[in-house]
Amino acid sequence: MSENKKRILSGMRPTGALHLGHYFGVLKNWIKLQDEYSCYFFVADWHALTSEYADPRRIKNFVPGLVKDWIAAGLDPKKCVIFQQSQVKQHAEMHLLLSMMTPLGWLERCPTYKDQKEQLAQKDLNTYGFLGYPVLMTGDILMYLSENVPVGQDQLPHLELTREIARRFNHLYGDFFPEPEALLTEECKLPGLDGRKMSKSYGNSIALSEDMDSVKKKVMSMLTDKNRLRKNDPGDPCICNLFPYHKLMTDPARLPEIEEGCRNASWGCVQCKRLLLESMERFLAPIHARRKELDDNPEMVWEILRDGNARAEEAAEATMTAMRKHLNLDF
Amino acid sequence: MSENKKRILSGMRPTGALHLGHYFGVLKNWIKLQDEYSCYFFVADWHALTSEYADPRRIKNFVPGLVKDWIAAGLDPKKCVIFQQSQVKQHAEMHLLLSMMTPLGWLERCPTYKDQKEQLAQKDLNTYGFLGYPVLMTGDILMYLSENVPVGQDQLPHLELTREIARRFNHLYGDFFPEPEALLTEECKLPGLDGRKMSKSYGNSIALSEDMDSVKKKVMSMLTDKNRLRKNDPGDPCICNLFPYHKLMTDPARLPEIEEGCRNASWGCVQCKRLLLESMERFLAPIHARRKELDDNPEMVWEILRDGNARAEEAAEATMTAMRKHLNLDF
Ligand code: SF4
Ligand code: SF4
Repeated sequence: MSENKKRILSGMRPTGALHLGHYFGVLKNWIKLQDEYSCYFFVADWHALTSEYADPRRIKNFVPGLVKDWIAAGLDPKKCVIFQQSQVKQHAEMHLLLSMMTPLGWLERCPTYKDQKEQLAQKDLNTYGFLGYPVLMTGDILMYLSENVPVGQDQLPHLELTREIARRFNHLYGDFFPEPEALLTEECKLPGLDGRKMSKSYGNSIALSEDMDSVKKKVMSMLTDKNRLRKNDPGDPCICNLFPYHKLMTDPARLPEIEEGCRNASWGCVQCKRLLLESMERFLAPIHARRKELDDNPEMVWEILRDGNARAEEAAEATMTAMRKHLNLDF
Repeated sequence: MSENKKRILSGMRPTGALHLGHYFGVLKNWIKLQDEYSCYFFVADWHALTSEYADPRRIKNFVPGLVKDWIAAGLDPKKCVIFQQSQVKQHAEMHLLLSMMTPLGWLERCPTYKDQKEQLAQKDLNTYGFLGYPVLMTGDILMYLSENVPVGQDQLPHLELTREIARRFNHLYGDFFPEPEALLTEECKLPGLDGRKMSKSYGNSIALSEDMDSVKKKVMSMLTDKNRLRKNDPGDPCICNLFPYHKLMTDPARLPEIEEGCRNASWGCVQCKRLLLESMERFLAPIHARRKELDDNPEMVWEILRDGNARAEEAAEATMTAMRKHLNLDF
């Protein structure tokens, strides 16, 4: 990992097994970025507490699982730094220092704040920490002096708040932080098996670590173009749940054949599902193989985290040392 | 310091030199407590940022000055732990963890929150950190599993909030923190030289480190009973600014003589001031002597802090280790 590359930071909350939607929406992009940037990818366990504070005990098991999912999918700890937020204590100090100069109104007006509170209405999220979530996130980003942050369109308001906090800091105390720029990731959302958003809670997802028997059952019972009751009815790949999967996992050379065959009814849905299953098998095989290696050697993931935490802490402490000095708070 | 004694925590913000009002209002009590309890006294530099964030550069110089004031006044680093909040990073982690489960409404409704914001209206205190000040304070207290907190009547609402947060934590996650009890300190407020509240900003204070020439000038020009225009007019110690000083600093055996002499006009105000000056000199002499030693050896106060920080950190890390385990967040 060359230190001349631009730095990037991104994280995920440890709240469960990753599925194909996470892979194509986020992970695939991370795997590409690790070759081009100096990447810090972190397990956002303190962030998970903002919504999971009432039941923190579940988080612990999800941490190694998340890292296994990442590495199985193709993140390479030799190319990027993989760390756990709560093990780099500097993040707590950064959060505290930034909290002092962050206007309350900015947080209250943050568009995602009200959205999320409504979405998670069954949980009591009227907490100080939930309101301060963007301050914690800002600290994570600024800690590594990241110049770019990979975000989807929906996260732009959060990044704008991060930029505003960085600007306010620089304005109050003199230039210090770079204003991180959005690195907009291609929106590449894989729908769930039933066509809705893929989500574990909808039961319409396929986990990266799911065994092939279960994958087979799920694929073979996927809904297809519902106008195609018999094999002889022509279908329309544009309104079929299966076709987006083919586009992401099947050899692109075969796509015209599927599209045409579907439209002129020369190609049946069962056939189509079998082909998808083959593609998925080819796609998941190396992921499952790496996962098995990690599962067979449970210490591996902790070693990777220990090493990553140490590297992240070194970078974090360098920033904090400079920041304390900048504020004349170095003792 | 025996570890069987109950623990007490108290702190002050490093915002300027301490004066006689601080001594009789707070420090005198601390000096008594250090013999009876296992005391942790801390320089609340992170707290200072809640109101001083716009100009943090001033804080640094006030830190050693505050510790010197304490030790000069009689705190003994062999009897108590003297530390600096920002050097015990566990306080930031504790603050973050508690922030997750502290209801926003509790902070917004805290009676001192609105009061303080009005009092400091010239500063922009609509910040996230200012609102969260009681969370930071709660973390400080709970960190040392303090069973008692020395507070004045006016700080009771804050302590009640601390108790509520401790109860909520224990309710959510199972018993862990003791609910700290108020150790009400005798209200012993010394008025300023002009009879108003003693405050540096009113210019009516005498600093503990003030040189005797300046003390003399200030005492000799103090306002006395304003009905006593000539020496022959009888006076009333109850409405004289000087008498509270005599009550705190002059040999109690001499008080009846002063009171009587004042009322029957056999004792003049200049005489009375000279006596007070003598008393003050006797009171300040050991404080000034200890202060001089500390000023002559500037490394001393840093050594005391280094030692205190290490002892505080040991206690803090023990609490954090147990707390992380209690939450199943130990990795
Ligand atoms: S043939 Fe394939 S693309 Fe066409 S409707 Fe059936 S499953 Fe969908
Ligand atoms: S004699 Fe002493 S107590 Fe009486 S008015 Fe004068 S200064 Fe005050």
